[in-house]
Amino acid sequence: MTNFSIKKFEKNHIPDVLNLIKELAEYEKAPREVTNTTEKMLEDGFGETPIFGGYITEIEGKIIGMAIYYYRYSTWKGRVLYLEDLYIMPEYRRLGIGEAFFEELINHAKNTNCARITWQVLDWNTPAVKFYEKLGAKIDKGWWNGSIDL
Amino acid sequence: MTNFSIKKFEKNHIPDVLNLIKELAEYEKAPREVTNTTEKMLEDGFGETPIFGGYITEIEGKIIGMAIYYYRYSTWKGRVLYLEDLYIMPEYRRLGIGEAFFEELINHAKNTNCARITWQVLDWNTPAVKFYEKLGAKIDKGWWNGSIDL
Repeated sequence: MTNFSIKKFEKNHIPDVLNLIKELAEYEKAPREVTNTTEKMLEDGFGETPIFGGYITEIEGKIIGMAIYYYRYSTWKGRVLYLEDLYIMPEYRRLGIGEAFFEELINHAKNTNCARITWQVLDWNTPAVKFYEKLGAKIDKGWWNGSIDL
Repeated sequence: MTNFSIKKFEKNHIPDVLNLIKELAEYEKAPREVTNTTEKMLEDGFGETPIFGGYITEIEGKIIGMAIYYYRYSTWKGRVLYLEDLYIMPEYRRLGIGEAFFEELINHAKNTNCARITWQVLDWNTPAVKFYEKLGAKIDKGWWNGSIDL
């Protein structure tokens, strides 16, 4: 058994977290989309009104996974916790870390009056879809994402 | 030509706005999903830290359309304006109201340092998809929505 511990984001985790964000973007075939920086993340996550929060997992002092959330507003449901990124380095999967992240996220969502936790998954990411289905999640395939870059 | 005016949400618009939210949910075949109330919307939109904002359109004193936004956080891009709902009553379409809403939203997004404006559209809602494509939007069909209700 591998021992892991889950901790809330601290400022000193952010450089490692940004590296994991980049690893995940590479897996999602969009590495050049990441224009975020450590400085911006420190301001956005630890400034006067933090706009995101999250958790890291450490194994033997090394950060090997992260979950980043922020709040969304649903005109149907009210306040919702949105899971922006969930990533565990490939060599540390199937150890229960993903499930442990979800346990924390669900508790946190309940404690902050959220009616729902939501996220997006790429249609070809079968291992992730299976993981979410095992958790009892609903996967809705009927929506497309629109965007305009400014 | 029909004259319309676009205004920012005020408290007294909210009961009409909630009716439009319900009309849109019916069009989206999910009328029972709306559990929001006028009281909750007044608190969420006009309380100490408003979590959404928006615009209405009036024609001859009647509210016939609305656009609701809030901010999201992208770990790739930073701050993003999210268009939660855009709705114009069927009999007032093709008058340029949708384009006018988008003009306001894009200006507002730029003025609040957003790198992008995003939204979701149902895969069978062809008139909406065509409207967004005409605006020059990117429509990404590769993501599914995951959720767990709490």
